[in-house]
Amino acid sequence: MLATEVIKAKREGLALSKDDLQFFIQSYTNGALPDYQMSALLMAIFLKGMNFQETLDLTQAMLDSGERVEFPQLFPIDKHSTGGVGDKTSLLLAPIAAACGVPVPMMSGRGLGHTGGTLDKLESIPGFNVHLDLPTFKNQVETLGLCFIGQTQNICPADKKIYALRDVTGTVESLPLICASIMSKKIAEGIKGLVLDVKVGSGAFMKSLEEAQALAESLISIGEGHGLKTQALITDMSQPLGSFVGNAVEVGECLSILKREDFMGHRFEKFHATETLSLELSAMMISMNKNIPLDQARSQAREALDSGKAYELFEKVCAKQGGDIQKLNFPTQCTVISAEKDGFLASMNCEKIGVAGIEMGAGRKKVTDTVDPIPGIEICVPVGGQIHRGEPLFKIHHTSDTPGLSPAQGLLSTCFQISDSPVEIPPLIQKRLS
Amino acid sequence: MLATEVIKAKREGLALSKDDLQFFIQSYTNGALPDYQMSALLMAIFLKGMNFQETLDLTQAMLDSGERVEFPQLFPIDKHSTGGVGDKTSLLLAPIAAACGVPVPMMSGRGLGHTGGTLDKLESIPGFNVHLDLPTFKNQVETLGLCFIGQTQNICPADKKIYALRDVTGTVESLPLICASIMSKKIAEGIKGLVLDVKVGSGAFMKSLEEAQALAESLISIGEGHGLKTQALITDMSQPLGSFVGNAVEVGECLSILKREDFMGHRFEKFHATETLSLELSAMMISMNKNIPLDQARSQAREALDSGKAYELFEKVCAKQGGDIQKLNFPTQCTVISAEKDGFLASMNCEKIGVAGIEMGAGRKKVTDTVDPIPGIEICVPVGGQIHRGEPLFKIHHTSDTPGLSPAQGLLSTCFQISDSPVEIPPLIQKRLS
Repeated sequence: MLATEVIKAKREGLALSKDDLQFFIQSYTNGALPDYQMSALLMAIFLKGMNFQETLDLTQAMLDSGERVEFPQLFPIDKHSTGGVGDKTSLLLAPIAAACGVPVPMMSGRGLGHTGGTLDKLESIPGFNVHLDLPTFKNQVETLGLCFIGQTQNICPADKKIYALRDVTGTVESLPLICASIMSKKIAEGIKGLVLDVKVGSGAFMKSLEEAQALAESLISIGEGHGLKTQALITDMSQPLGSFVGNAVEVGECLSILKREDFMGHRFEKFHATETLSLELSAMMISMNKNIPLDQARSQAREALDSGKAYELFEKVCAKQGGDIQKLNFPTQCTVISAEKDGFLASMNCEKIGVAGIEMGAGRKKVTDTVDPIPGIEICVPVGGQIHRGEPLFKIHHTSDTPGLSPAQGLLSTCFQISDSPVEIPPLIQKRLS
Repeated sequence: MLATEVIKAKREGLALSKDDLQFFIQSYTNGALPDYQMSALLMAIFLKGMNFQETLDLTQAMLDSGERVEFPQLFPIDKHSTGGVGDKTSLLLAPIAAACGVPVPMMSGRGLGHTGGTLDKLESIPGFNVHLDLPTFKNQVETLGLCFIGQTQNICPADKKIYALRDVTGTVESLPLICASIMSKKIAEGIKGLVLDVKVGSGAFMKSLEEAQALAESLISIGEGHGLKTQALITDMSQPLGSFVGNAVEVGECLSILKREDFMGHRFEKFHATETLSLELSAMMISMNKNIPLDQARSQAREALDSGKAYELFEKVCAKQGGDIQKLNFPTQCTVISAEKDGFLASMNCEKIGVAGIEMGAGRKKVTDTVDPIPGIEICVPVGGQIHRGEPLFKIHHTSDTPGLSPAQGLLSTCFQISDSPVEIPPLIQKRLS
């Protein structure tokens, strides 16, 4: 099979066969097919699209490029978020669902660009090790019910190579490519159900509800095409989720919810958005795993949180993976951005808040950057909230060593709009798809 | 300037600026920009197109990637053909025009795929050297009025690198890319006028008159945008031009016309199609150079041919470039493909005839293949010609060493259709554009 013929077929808008895709992905993964042919195909896919069957076959080919974990006796469930700012639900929903008996094999990513990553957040817990091998991962899911790891070299190596190429060839924002990338990695974890949190808004990859819905529908179809129970929520990312954006501070917000304790001078009730979404997503996971009505699953999730069982499990998982929650370091200094007039917070540029974090080292500009666990941003007023002149809108939490304070301040000072009249509060959960 | 941003702009169908194109072409030529980014851009250009200004700027950027010959005192003219089978006009029109005083700096290509190349044909003349440096080339044009050379490393290196990449990434058949590739090389020769022979039909790159016309118009616009007088003929390639297809045999057909002598048992009048088109193209060159009416230029061209002046000049140029016409070797054996019924030759698959030549080594499958000057194919009956059962349709001229005889026979036996009723003879010159 000639690579050029496959490229030409897609260029003409024809559908590629399962064999075409297997050939292309396999040859690319083993190095026989050069980058320049893959990038030509990626651009042709970007511009000509792929039908459902092609996307399914592409997902399968990426899956076949590496190893696959299997849990024959279990019905494991995972969650995937399309990425946002302050999006910390994994740290809560995983122990909540696992405490209710749902096996959660959680393979997460790192932050890139303005969005954060679960691995970076977990690694702000001193000693926490996400570099486990697959047998250890599998064993921990089977014994503790929950394990957090990073993507290993063995899982979907094709995806790793293709994603790096897409990043430098202007072919990232393609629905079939995004779907195949997400779903191949998730299916490889050995899950039987997947809950999707598709973010929409200024801090999300998808800026409109229509785009988010198209992505959610496509992901659900591929999941179900591969025999997975798949459901999705489309949730608000017009502002960061909860109060904190960063690494240690996001873990702090989650621990506050898990332990029902204060954090940074706030009662845990202040973090209700984070708690609400995490509970809802974990309830969906529980309902899927146990095949029970969502309301019943919600009660179980709530009970696991309120009783402290979810916290106990989280602590146990941390300890098992070498992490010591007691040694978490938090920022010691604070710089405040205050409102210059009275009014209502009309909107935020949520992406700018993520970028402000990157300026301080809380995120990455390049894959090779290292992340500073300490600095963070506190969102003092949510969209729709009333504000008075001189009151804090944002707090930058940092240390005396934190770099990039001044560009972060600059970004935060210009990332919001204040309205004289009351504004509508954006609903946290915008749509439900299954 | 970020390469990815340029790729994204074209991907979205935006026009690229002169700076974008200069940056991309320069960085690619000097090796700073990797193949995979160029191939992503090429596919985006293929699918989203380029407007006239972009194509002009791309041509300029490719031109700027290398050296440029200049003839400040002269008004040199060249011809470019989009490529066909048995297309040997360069060997005639160049000495005819030059004999009339038109400086002809002829930089030609090699055959690739089913079409032949002037350099391969010239090299069938023992000793003929097309590897001259630019000062020698320039000097010969200034003294003899004609020089034949191959593209040097110094002329449009960007084009060479990009063409090789297009070939393996399914991005060859793109109007702006084709136009920029052709025109940058021609402009770099230092010409002030260009006559285009745009081929149309089963043996041409453009299969329909509409496509050929679009290509011709685009080439003319770019030529004129760069200050060149530019005119085009759209000519028939539904059958090979003239009688012979190959290398030495095509030179033989041309020498027969130039010397008014027999070749392979045929009177030179048999090769009237080759003569007619070559005379017309050279007349256009003469008319451009001298700024005289076409009819007057036609008389001059005819006189240069009939008087033997064109032949004298061709012989002189061959000698100057080391070639000895007397030592030309022709095939010694002949295999005939005969008609199996009476009728009229309705059509040929002209590309198949070119491929039959390749099977015998007369052309290249890969750029690195070497060409055998000896074997050739004779077209005994033109489209529209009457044929009787048992009469030859094609003759394969070869030696006892020629490989691929049997696949060539197979191709030739299935490359034509015979009709019971008379068929229209396709006009040689189908359209004239200026």
